[in-house]
Amino acid sequence: RSGKMAKSTQLIDNEVFRAYATYTAIVLLKMMLMSLVTAYFRITRKAFVNPEDTASFGKGDSAKKYLRTDPDVERVRRGHLNDLENIVPFVGVGLLYALSGPDLSTALLHFRIFAGARILHTFAYLIPLPQPSRGLSWAVGYTVTISMAYKVLKTVLLL
Amino acid sequence: RSGKMAKSTQLIDNEVFRAYATYTAIVLLKMMLMSLVTAYFRITRKAFVNPEDTASFGKGDSAKKYLRTDPDVERVRRGHLNDLENIVPFVGVGLLYALSGPDLSTALLHFRIFAGARILHTFAYLIPLPQPSRGLSWAVGYTVTISMAYKVLKTVLLL
Amino acid sequence: RSGKMAKSTQLIDNEVFRAYATYTAIVLLKMMLMSLVTAYFRITRKAFVNPEDTASFGKGDSAKKYLRTDPDVERVRRGHLNDLENIVPFVGVGLLYALSGPDLSTALLHFRIFAGARILHTFAYLIPLPQPSRGLSWAVGYTVTISMAYKVLKTVLLL
Repeated sequence: RSGKMAKSTQLIDNEVFRAYATYTAIVLLKMMLMSLVTAYFRITRKAFVNPEDTASFGKGDSAKKYLRTDPDVERVRRGHLNDLENIVPFVGVGLLYALSGPDLSTALLHFRIFAGARILHTFAYLIPLPQPSRGLSWAVGYTVTISMAYKVLKTVLLL
Repeated sequence: RSGKMAKSTQLIDNEVFRAYATYTAIVLLKMMLMSLVTAYFRITRKAFVNPEDTASFGKGDSAKKYLRTDPDVERVRRGHLNDLENIVPFVGVGLLYALSGPDLSTALLHFRIFAGARILHTFAYLIPLPQPSRGLSWAVGYTVTISMAYKVLKTVLLL
Repeated sequence: RSGKMAKSTQLIDNEVFRAYATYTAIVLLKMMLMSLVTAYFRITRKAFVNPEDTASFGKGDSAKKYLRTDPDVERVRRGHLNDLENIVPFVGVGLLYALSGPDLSTALLHFRIFAGARILHTFAYLIPLPQPSRGLSWAVGYTVTISMAYKVLKTVLLL
């Protein structure tokens, strides 16, 4: 048992893998934060989508008026979906990249730029900042993931 | 070759990793089930979104009337998206957590509570149960993932 | 340090894992491509969702008319969401499957069919091809993931 435990701990002792684990936890926590921001705007804007969520506002028409869309809520939701579309590939490709034996400094460069770009993207989306802030921060994160995927395919290709 | 195979099999022999694999397979299968529930409601409610999906109902206006949204279909789809938003972080963070060397009993506690909460969340969303059923089951799953992320960052932090 | 590096490299030297890494990179890149297709249709159809994205078209009503939905844009977005719903389970279950010690030929069969089915699904959605092209390609990918999940649960089950 302790032998097995040691085995699985060795992966987490690898510095590149530790860096991957750190930045993956950070970007996934950032993505999860979008749920709280959505809930905050739904409650403060009183804009809900499920009838059972407005029951505490009374019955009938008095509650029904809170079943509506709100521009701020929809904006956060678009940011959340954009996170899913971009952070999922980072987590999947990043794991393979971390296992493909990159230099620690190169790996850290990829992970730091991706995390920074996605945090900027969220601010650009939610404030919102004028374009091309959001577009550029999206493109930077996208390019990092493409770069990691290229390294993975170059290292492991087995079709 | 057999040596390599044995190496990769050792990870799956680790009990914490086996528990992670079991619960990850379960919650991903539960999420996939949402596709079938959506298809079921689309067909029984005759509510489609793509014109090519209604071609078997005839041409022109007779088919066009089935291109519509249905409250039950939209409800399932919201449940599916909520699964993506919450199960993706669990799968990603949970993998790192499983590799960070937690006690088997602590790990099982996390995995079991998360899976139970997400199954409850689905019933609360689809029946639907009165609030705060859905809100609480969401919060429980969310908290489990935060707890695992905290353990991961405490163990591996390399920024 | 080099000992650790060697350890983590051994996983990527395993042939089944290399095949998993190859096909996971391919399907994630395919999914990422949907973002570019969405951007292409948003720009060519002039159909945007965020006011800040239309600022370059001028101010007031002249820009506001580009805040609209377009059937082609919405179609790509549905294809993208369908990718998330199906490729996320493949990446998660596929990793566990690759670690569960399948034969290389069986694993390659699963990965190749899944990747082929999802590429067909994208063409069927975007062209669009008449049904049941899209439905069948979806079902084939879905079945592959179920088959891998069954193997994972049979190998590792620890509840």
